[in-house]
Amino acid sequence: MGPLTRSFEERLDALALLALRVGVGFGAGERLRLGGPLEAAPLVRRITALAYDFGATYVDVRYADAEIELARALHAHGETLDHYPSEQADLAYLVAARGDAVIRVSGADPDLMSRADPTRVQRMTRAAGRANRRARELGMRSFMPWTIVPSATPAWARKVFPGETDAMERLWHEIFTATRATAEDPVAAWEAHADGLDARARRLSAAGLAALHLRGPGTDLRIALCEGHVWEGASATAESDGRRIVANIPTEEVFTAPHARRVDGVVRATKPLSYDGQLIDGFSLTFEDGAVVDASAERGQAVLDGLLETDAGARRLGEVALVPHSSPIARSGRLFFNTLFDENAACHLALGDAYLTSVRGGLERPREDLGADGLNRSLVHVDFMVGSSELDVDGVHGDGTVVAVMRGGEWEMGALVP
Amino acid sequence: MGPLTRSFEERLDALALLALRVGVGFGAGERLRLGGPLEAAPLVRRITALAYDFGATYVDVRYADAEIELARALHAHGETLDHYPSEQADLAYLVAARGDAVIRVSGADPDLMSRADPTRVQRMTRAAGRANRRARELGMRSFMPWTIVPSATPAWARKVFPGETDAMERLWHEIFTATRATAEDPVAAWEAHADGLDARARRLSAAGLAALHLRGPGTDLRIALCEGHVWEGASATAESDGRRIVANIPTEEVFTAPHARRVDGVVRATKPLSYDGQLIDGFSLTFEDGAVVDASAERGQAVLDGLLETDAGARRLGEVALVPHSSPIARSGRLFFNTLFDENAACHLALGDAYLTSVRGGLERPREDLGADGLNRSLVHVDFMVGSSELDVDGVHGDGTVVAVMRGGEWEMGALVP
Repeated sequence: MGPLTRSFEERLDALALLALRVGVGFGAGERLRLGGPLEAAPLVRRITALAYDFGATYVDVRYADAEIELARALHAHGETLDHYPSEQADLAYLVAARGDAVIRVSGADPDLMSRADPTRVQRMTRAAGRANRRARELGMRSFMPWTIVPSATPAWARKVFPGETDAMERLWHEIFTATRATAEDPVAAWEAHADGLDARARRLSAAGLAALHLRGPGTDLRIALCEGHVWEGASATAESDGRRIVANIPTEEVFTAPHARRVDGVVRATKPLSYDGQLIDGFSLTFEDGAVVDASAERGQAVLDGLLETDAGARRLGEVALVPHSSPIARSGRLFFNTLFDENAACHLALGDAYLTSVRGGLERPREDLGADGLNRSLVHVDFMVGSSELDVDGVHGDGTVVAVMRGGEWEMGALVP
Repeated sequence: MGPLTRSFEERLDALALLALRVGVGFGAGERLRLGGPLEAAPLVRRITALAYDFGATYVDVRYADAEIELARALHAHGETLDHYPSEQADLAYLVAARGDAVIRVSGADPDLMSRADPTRVQRMTRAAGRANRRARELGMRSFMPWTIVPSATPAWARKVFPGETDAMERLWHEIFTATRATAEDPVAAWEAHADGLDARARRLSAAGLAALHLRGPGTDLRIALCEGHVWEGASATAESDGRRIVANIPTEEVFTAPHARRVDGVVRATKPLSYDGQLIDGFSLTFEDGAVVDASAERGQAVLDGLLETDAGARRLGEVALVPHSSPIARSGRLFFNTLFDENAACHLALGDAYLTSVRGGLERPREDLGADGLNRSLVHVDFMVGSSELDVDGVHGDGTVVAVMRGGEWEMGALVP
């Protein structure tokens, strides 16, 4: 095995280590639920072996085969598309509710479902969303330790590096760089990085902004923040046992919850969005009183319409996240067609469900009270990218004072107190 | 796509059709639980698409990654090896108990686990066996429609055709031939074949033999048959709704249940046995009063010992099956290191659990009564091959009369009544 190969193996091990140690803080005597695409088997196997080295009681690996989902979308009789096996949802809830760690490996073909009828895909997605509501809610409050890590796969690599014979190697290179798997001590590098993001989040929380104002080409959007909002960085606390987790590797964002009924203006997406294996591109959303009242896409209009029609909360915002345009992933200049990457290369918003941890006391207070304070609720949570080198973000205080937060896509927080 | 490729695709479709139509009699509005090795994805996807074409409500695909099992055997801390996630066993039982069709694709690496410590593998196997007892019992009585079909995989192909560059193509050729996927009308070919096996089973049942006597090189074994035994051929009846199923594709055998306490003599295996990804080869078993009292293997002694020590029933026989040496699979002259193939190329016995359908009234009568009549019970059911061109099988009537059943590995049932 030559030095290049050895280096690849070492980096794959580093990524597995990051997923377990930094991502979910995995320790002896724990169980792990691990999912990912078939084609991510090399990383899935590394994570499994390392989890057992760490003393895992059991690693339950569930591979997802996108071709199986596509086969259903293409072949199933129409009347069956709203069915989802409740026993699978019950199992997912059971393992989450007892606090098993959950790792998802991301790397699916970004437009696998492009051959399928969007309305059929939506029915499948909604049925799965409804069935998995309880498990998803545990994830949205980080009850159990969970994280998402990337793996290169041939279909994804072809999409990012079309026509290039070394597409897989190049995508792995981007992944290892973005996840800091190339660092001398990847865990230490992550702790320093997460500390930096967490400090920025604390500073933004302390500023107590009432709203943000986003301005850029095609974008002029005023986003009031949820009452009692809290900015979060890389780290979260797993409610089950209080451990520190990092739910996305990589992550470059700080984020909080918009007020679901106080968003007005227009926003233009700056990158395509892969949703359910279907691409939505060149799209703009117009908001009134928090709800999308107009949505137009150059590609994927039906997919976008279907997403917005999922439920009442799907037309409202559940997250606003700030990422500098100089983030390592953005510097690569690549479009990844994968939310885990693209959302960490650009400021983004999410349609749908808000994280309970985005507001003070969100885990303890009744959901109805949180809703009254503006926290959005939905079966979906779909991030879309709005950042660029031309995006300015103002912070607006309760008294109407405006302070710069980002200029030209970069942090400019000097005027923020403290 | 050239003609050769098209032909491969057509045969893969034929095999998927056989699994669904002949194997489990699949129809509209049903659910399917489908499992197989990662490397069998092409066939798994075909079966899935065709099941949806047939009106499946949902196909739950669960890929097995042998590398994940191996990772556990190599890396897990010793005290964790007896753990099996009960929620997975509960799920398997639930879907079997409601009568969902189950298809398993067979094709794992026959000696993947050879690098692992056999005692560690046994602990994993036993924990899984104990946890899955209820689901397994439903399978052993064919409560739900179920079948096993083969798929070529690279590791299996390398084992059967070592050092040959076209190993996969050659193994697929053997699979398509053995499964009759090459027939003009594969379903009709299977119905004719199954009818033939079923007729032979009826004839053997009608003969009402008390015992069999197997003689060959290294083998001299007297096997009393269970009281009220019934010979079965290719077809079984799913208890859940009475449909006809064929639980193994291919199948060439007729089989029934030995008397668990009335087997005496010695038997020498004629082919290696792949058990739990570990090979046992060159082995002989000595029986007294139905129990193995001596077992010696040229390879895999520890694996064999571990198997026999699983529980009390693991040392006794649960099945005797007769297969002519001229069966299509035997004619290939190949050793497949896969029980689905090798057991259909040779007479075989199984250590462990007996099928309830191997005795009259087996599904209705209390298990204790069946045990008193000689029906064996165990957590395992492991077939091993004893047939060859040199095997003679006598039938022994209750009055001591001896009639020929097989001579030189071929049927010779002329003296049997009727």
